[in-house]
Amino acid sequence: MGQQTKNLKKESALVLFSGGQDSTTCLVWALENFKEVHAIAFDYEQRHAIELKSAKKIAKLKNIPLRIEKIELFKSLTKNALLQKTEIKAGTKKKLPTTFVDGRNIVFLTIAGIYAKQLNVTNLVTGVCETDYSGYPDCRNKFIKSIEKTLSLGMDYKLKIHTPLMWKNKAQTVKMMKKLGGIELLKYTHTCYEGRKLACGKCPACLLRLNGFKEANIKDPIKYEQ
Amino acid sequence: MGQQTKNLKKESALVLFSGGQDSTTCLVWALENFKEVHAIAFDYEQRHAIELKSAKKIAKLKNIPLRIEKIELFKSLTKNALLQKTEIKAGTKKKLPTTFVDGRNIVFLTIAGIYAKQLNVTNLVTGVCETDYSGYPDCRNKFIKSIEKTLSLGMDYKLKIHTPLMWKNKAQTVKMMKKLGGIELLKYTHTCYEGRKLACGKCPACLLRLNGFKEANIKDPIKYEQ
Repeated sequence: MGQQTKNLKKESALVLFSGGQDSTTCLVWALENFKEVHAIAFDYEQRHAIELKSAKKIAKLKNIPLRIEKIELFKSLTKNALLQKTEIKAGTKKKLPTTFVDGRNIVFLTIAGIYAKQLNVTNLVTGVCETDYSGYPDCRNKFIKSIEKTLSLGMDYKLKIHTPLMWKNKAQTVKMMKKLGGIELLKYTHTCYEGRKLACGKCPACLLRLNGFKEANIKDPIKYEQ
Repeated sequence: MGQQTKNLKKESALVLFSGGQDSTTCLVWALENFKEVHAIAFDYEQRHAIELKSAKKIAKLKNIPLRIEKIELFKSLTKNALLQKTEIKAGTKKKLPTTFVDGRNIVFLTIAGIYAKQLNVTNLVTGVCETDYSGYPDCRNKFIKSIEKTLSLGMDYKLKIHTPLMWKNKAQTVKMMKKLGGIELLKYTHTCYEGRKLACGKCPACLLRLNGFKEANIKDPIKYEQ
């Protein structure tokens, strides 16, 4: 990363920020690697809208300008367990998880790209990962490469999408955050799909998180229901 | 087109429909080529929101289910002459037209793709064209190919984007509509950027339209201000 980091130090970045563990790790990574950092979060009437409180709290602590963009289209257009009160089920080889929101990251990255252009920022940072992940197609590397090209072509504006967690498993992500000195900040993050203040510890998102901390042998600073 | 048309006849399509000349031509083209046709229009607080009335009128006449999707983000995120009352200026080799809305077709095609997936439709039809066009980067063929791939990857859902007007100039588009028997329908279309009931006849959109009809030697059925 030596050479790349050196160049990035002169540039600014916009982080797609949800208030969760991965995007908070990305935020701290971006603060380490870029001259200036902005953040954008999305209010799409998600079941776990409580994550936006985490996003605001963390952005404030880190003194990062945060834009929260309201998106209404998913609720009326798509059917899934993040927007309707249907059962949360992990995916299988043949089936997408019930929590997959069609087009979510396409819309998020597009809006982030549009906002970045207005800010005159050419770097986007997102916490997507295809190692320990929920199986969402819009988290895979080949999708990210494709939308990077699409956004740049569509706006005549060269954007670079950084995915520092793409090839890390959850334990490696936790270790990376430790190295960046950000474990304490994870106390304010929200991961649980259920959207309650205390994480349920049972949904696919909680299980991924818990497993990552366990494997990394680091204590998760958030509280779980007993 | 023989083989392709034969296959499409068994399939359904979703047309990105603005109520303007090009997308109305695409709608008639789709009716000719697909078993079933749906349409989607976008209300993004455009200066010429009057085009949505045209869209509704034409969809009703053709008995096509039309979804109108409201999009608020452009108004707050972007600056341009379609959303603010600034001067409408055509583009130059170095500058985009002042009417270019950053990310517009990226967002439109993404939402259309999401909607198509819910409808179980795999064909999108859009009237973009890079021959006689305003110079918008999100109308070019290489952009369309790129977003076709991005949407398919991002939703794990194979979409095909049809662009029947891509390589036609405006005169050829008018002639195509004549061949499809749709010239009369163009009476209900709206093209002018100014958004008044009578077209101004002077803005870049009107000039493109007028020139096309003139070159095709066909009378434009809409009325212009004197």
